[in-house]
Amino acid sequence: MSDSPVTACVLIIGNEILSGRTQDTNLAHLAQTLNEFGVQVREARVIPDVEDIIVDTLNECRRAFDYVLTTGGIGPTHDDITADCVANAFGVELEMHPEVEALIRRREAPPEIMEARLRMARIPKGATLIENAMSGPPGFQLENVFVMAGVPAIMRAMVSTLGDRMQGGKPVRSRSIIAYLSEGHVAKPLGRIQERYPNTDLGSYPFYRQDRYGTNLVMRGTDPDLLDALLEEVREMVIELGGEYEDPE
Amino acid sequence: MSDSPVTACVLIIGNEILSGRTQDTNLAHLAQTLNEFGVQVREARVIPDVEDIIVDTLNECRRAFDYVLTTGGIGPTHDDITADCVANAFGVELEMHPEVEALIRRREAPPEIMEARLRMARIPKGATLIENAMSGPPGFQLENVFVMAGVPAIMRAMVSTLGDRMQGGKPVRSRSIIAYLSEGHVAKPLGRIQERYPNTDLGSYPFYRQDRYGTNLVMRGTDPDLLDALLEEVREMVIELGGEYEDPE
Repeated sequence: MSDSPVTACVLIIGNEILSGRTQDTNLAHLAQTLNEFGVQVREARVIPDVEDIIVDTLNECRRAFDYVLTTGGIGPTHDDITADCVANAFGVELEMHPEVEALIRRREAPPEIMEARLRMARIPKGATLIENAMSGPPGFQLENVFVMAGVPAIMRAMVSTLGDRMQGGKPVRSRSIIAYLSEGHVAKPLGRIQERYPNTDLGSYPFYRQDRYGTNLVMRGTDPDLLDALLEEVREMVIELGGEYEDPE
Repeated sequence: MSDSPVTACVLIIGNEILSGRTQDTNLAHLAQTLNEFGVQVREARVIPDVEDIIVDTLNECRRAFDYVLTTGGIGPTHDDITADCVANAFGVELEMHPEVEALIRRREAPPEIMEARLRMARIPKGATLIENAMSGPPGFQLENVFVMAGVPAIMRAMVSTLGDRMQGGKPVRSRSIIAYLSEGHVAKPLGRIQERYPNTDLGSYPFYRQDRYGTNLVMRGTDPDLLDALLEEVREMVIELGGEYEDPE
């Protein structure tokens, strides 16, 4: 297991997310799942269904991060261009993948529909498949790039199979409390605690609910003992400031 | 009003989104609101609370897009570094803004809390304020960069004030139908229609619900008459394919 962080970038491909018509939920799920594999999502980009942009972004990100995971654009229609873009980015050909072709041909269809479906059997040369346990064709992996469906249920089934394919580091663990104090109250003492824990990430997120304001205090790091010690200090800080806290549900 | 598209990039700054702990909802709201201003969100990035990354991303994106909008990182704590990063990216100083300072001092607090709150009065030189009608300090605009809070209710109040500050083009309008046909069924005829409407964007998004599968067909473009003609063709296509459709609610 690596001691240095293993990083990933998520590319969410699709005009429907950028237009605001569809609310993305894939990023949060991917971040949590990859963390269990010991892989930290360090950036995410939402980009349109435009070939040049997808190719350039893939090439930039596959060099900057240990892993790149894409969602969206692997269906049978004219705007499903992710496989073409991955092939282009790596400078390899798209080939009809015999296994995917056989899977698609198993369900009979009129010629024009079959031709459209077979578009989904075009896989970049050298890629390995990512099983689709839900419906439709598989995703694929080429080097450090993992290409998955955009439909959340399908994406979730796909990513659940990837743990063995990634060389993860230590997963990031978290602790948190809900402090009924404003961010201004906690800011200075929290900053002093953060200075003493340089290898953990101490975040504060204000909220207003049920006529009560407060701040979620979240500690994240790879060392559980350090996190427990930090949590105790943060709890004591809240009490010293005259505040109340709750543990999260 | 410009005839060429006016573009924006959204930067979502915050470890809590990247960790998957918090589900972002700001992007979808921003995309829809900016579209009403005639500004098209063409990319979004989610980046961590790390100064070098924020500065580099700001500098790359403010040159590549007409507008950049950021959310997150403008509170009083040690991890609120967006104002510092914007000043750094533009090569200007952070200054105590007298108007914001007066606003913060209006609510009394012990010295240490006041000192933390006054952190939020540090605004890059040359920036103009973005009103915060909800609570807390304002955001700010420096050239083509708009800096807003991450808390959704506050961000929404802020962006609602920005219409007059942006030179928008024509807003993108959309039409859509719910077709009870698989993507494979519609793929080929849809591609042929798309070829005849090069200036509109014809997207297809499969779904499975209540034991029924289908495809949302979404048309987007700036010319309402063209969209209406396209919608009619898409409806006819579904009927010719032997499918049913519904208009969206």
